[in-house]
Amino acid sequence: MSNTEEIKTANQRLEVVAENGLLHRRSFLTKGLIFAGSAVGTGVIQSNVAAAPLGNPEWSLQTGNPTPLYQTPSKFAANVVRTNANPDSIPKPTQARTPHQLMEGAITPNGLHFSIVHAGIPEIDPAQHKLMIHGLVKRPLIFTLDDLMRYPMVSRVTFIECGGNSVSLFSPEPIQADAQALHGLVSCAEWTGVKLSTLLEETGVDPKAKWFVAEGADASGLDRSVPLAKAFDDALIAFYQNGEPLMPGNGYPMRLLVPGYEGNMNVKYLRRIELVAEPAMSYYEAKVYTAPLPNGKAYQFFFVSEVKSFITWPSYGFKVRGPGLYQISGLAYSGVGRIKKVMVSADGGKSWGQAALQDPVLSKAFTRFRMPWRWDGSPAIIQSRAYDEFGNAQPTRAQFVAARGQYDTVPSVTAFQNHHFNAVVSWGIDSNGEVKHVYV
Amino acid sequence: MSNTEEIKTANQRLEVVAENGLLHRRSFLTKGLIFAGSAVGTGVIQSNVAAAPLGNPEWSLQTGNPTPLYQTPSKFAANVVRTNANPDSIPKPTQARTPHQLMEGAITPNGLHFSIVHAGIPEIDPAQHKLMIHGLVKRPLIFTLDDLMRYPMVSRVTFIECGGNSVSLFSPEPIQADAQALHGLVSCAEWTGVKLSTLLEETGVDPKAKWFVAEGADASGLDRSVPLAKAFDDALIAFYQNGEPLMPGNGYPMRLLVPGYEGNMNVKYLRRIELVAEPAMSYYEAKVYTAPLPNGKAYQFFFVSEVKSFITWPSYGFKVRGPGLYQISGLAYSGVGRIKKVMVSADGGKSWGQAALQDPVLSKAFTRFRMPWRWDGSPAIIQSRAYDEFGNAQPTRAQFVAARGQYDTVPSVTAFQNHHFNAVVSWGIDSNGEVKHVYV
Repeated sequence: MSNTEEIKTANQRLEVVAENGLLHRRSFLTKGLIFAGSAVGTGVIQSNVAAAPLGNPEWSLQTGNPTPLYQTPSKFAANVVRTNANPDSIPKPTQARTPHQLMEGAITPNGLHFSIVHAGIPEIDPAQHKLMIHGLVKRPLIFTLDDLMRYPMVSRVTFIECGGNSVSLFSPEPIQADAQALHGLVSCAEWTGVKLSTLLEETGVDPKAKWFVAEGADASGLDRSVPLAKAFDDALIAFYQNGEPLMPGNGYPMRLLVPGYEGNMNVKYLRRIELVAEPAMSYYEAKVYTAPLPNGKAYQFFFVSEVKSFITWPSYGFKVRGPGLYQISGLAYSGVGRIKKVMVSADGGKSWGQAALQDPVLSKAFTRFRMPWRWDGSPAIIQSRAYDEFGNAQPTRAQFVAARGQYDTVPSVTAFQNHHFNAVVSWGIDSNGEVKHVYV
Repeated sequence: MSNTEEIKTANQRLEVVAENGLLHRRSFLTKGLIFAGSAVGTGVIQSNVAAAPLGNPEWSLQTGNPTPLYQTPSKFAANVVRTNANPDSIPKPTQARTPHQLMEGAITPNGLHFSIVHAGIPEIDPAQHKLMIHGLVKRPLIFTLDDLMRYPMVSRVTFIECGGNSVSLFSPEPIQADAQALHGLVSCAEWTGVKLSTLLEETGVDPKAKWFVAEGADASGLDRSVPLAKAFDDALIAFYQNGEPLMPGNGYPMRLLVPGYEGNMNVKYLRRIELVAEPAMSYYEAKVYTAPLPNGKAYQFFFVSEVKSFITWPSYGFKVRGPGLYQISGLAYSGVGRIKKVMVSADGGKSWGQAALQDPVLSKAFTRFRMPWRWDGSPAIIQSRAYDEFGNAQPTRAQFVAARGQYDTVPSVTAFQNHHFNAVVSWGIDSNGEVKHVYV
């Protein structure tokens, strides 16, 4: 066959599964898919070898840099960093957001894991730090880090999401901002530590205990109440993040990990766990995270990050290079279990095709989804909609707003406001390939 | 029941599975296992609440540090770094080793991933870097990074191990050094990139092609030959490491990834792939990595990191605190597939018990294993022995040396020498709890 014939044959194998060019998720697994079919005409393949020899760039002609003891990114990747919402470190909460639109895969590297602190990042000497477990226990105990390190450990990959992630989308008009600004308060890492239940077996539990209050050692002294059942489900006292000690912004030397529960219940700099009969009604549960409803009532407690997804490429700020084959890529997660499927639309939700999920699909962890897409150059609206193993479906924005309301102005993360936005996110691509944030 | 009775009952539930105190791997999952049974007497629980209130350390009384755009570890974790075998950056290979004895879990964070460079770390401008695929192809092509980023991507967690990792163990006497010095040239990350097979579908393949030669863009111009079958199996061109662009020491802006094959075949700073009929017999395959055998012959090609494991805690340099319950922890991996089981011995290999494997157990990736152990305070020799899903078992050192020889002096990594040491590693614990490297 000639090249042209090969390309034609391969393109015929691409099965369209939804309107506006969504292709079967296994299209990219088909041997003989010739990307050049769309690519030659749009500049993917720039030149052949005869026309453009590699040459000898300077880095091939001279000795490179010394090796550091702790690696950090290339200066050419200096844009792949978190944002800092409080660059002058004035006394207020500081949000640092993960740049999802510049990342791939499902693990967030430690340098880029989101963080929020309320009184700066404490510099805690692990040799001085202690964890007390008291209250409705049989034997109140204090543990040093060395004590805790002796206990049996487990590892798990799990995301942590601030309850305020994506709150900009409560705005009645779509905020024009990138995935980092809109959805950067969620990250996913492998955490290792001791099960809280192991420590509670040491202290014993008074049957009157129904909740525990976790408190941090930093100056904000953040405390949250957690139902005791979570302690015996999957709560950890975590010491390691992707293999190394926790980052200072993520709780060094230890944090509570309550997989799937809103970010600040995963109390950082953990120093105290008190078993109690009733929730403490602390600031973050009595004021901040009480999600108001349109009917004037409110969720007093709303712990779980419900099933959610967003597309990271293409997304706001990118320009699609021209008609042709592309791979839509994004993240899906659920605070109650595994992602079951992710459906993708390129026509604003009228038709949907099923995306490929990257193995391993783990409970309460990021799942990377990807979807082949042949863009014809006309305006398109791309969306993703995630479903978890318990049958929960990500709501459309219309469904979500009907249930949870929206705001006339952009709310701030710490205002008395709604939280836990998990509706379908829409990116609009115009005929120039420019991507905007849109509502459908 | 009194506390003492509870402890006694819980300890009775611990099922001994091998000599010298190895317990059933599910012992730690048993509700009601009271660690204090062994711990009270050995200082795990230091004090009760009444005797030692938490106090107000300085970090609870003052505002903490500003939030950086890219997080790095606490100054109190300054020892959790790589070593640098070439601190003066003289013209020779530079090895930076991962501190496994100070880590937990199965992911190596990017800051601590091992690296070896032969002419320093190049500072490559990704906008100038190109990848050429040529030789026995139908359409030689040159790709920019932007070109490549358009192709469909996949992610996979996999380890990379230098063929020279653990070569100190070819020494006839055990070198007294920690897990980092002995086994630190292996790490494991989530990598994301484009399948090499996808790009070869673009170029087409001449049926005469049986190998490909991969070449790096740095001043060392490292090149290796890889059987073409690997390209159509699981080889990737990787751009992302644990979600962010590759570290400069690990190949930024792109590297070849040949999962399970020895480290330097995973060519960093990849700029050229040439399809060829015969291997190129480059420096690293004609000289360095030809593993000599005791009979005077040699393995010309020995690509795969065979099934292997080592215990990270306790290991050389640690002191076990005293008799009582502990968790032995280590890493296992195989370059051909999944770890099937890891057996642990505490009596130098005479009896073995099966360790717990941390989910998810992934092909060609680190698997963390853990094993409950009740140390009675007498000298013990702990070992781990891994088995993969294809029935391969890690050899004992005696088996290994019989097949592959040993040296009278400690070899250097780049000498003409043996490689791919994967025998059982032994740590000896004396009655003071001090851990030494021993041979059995």
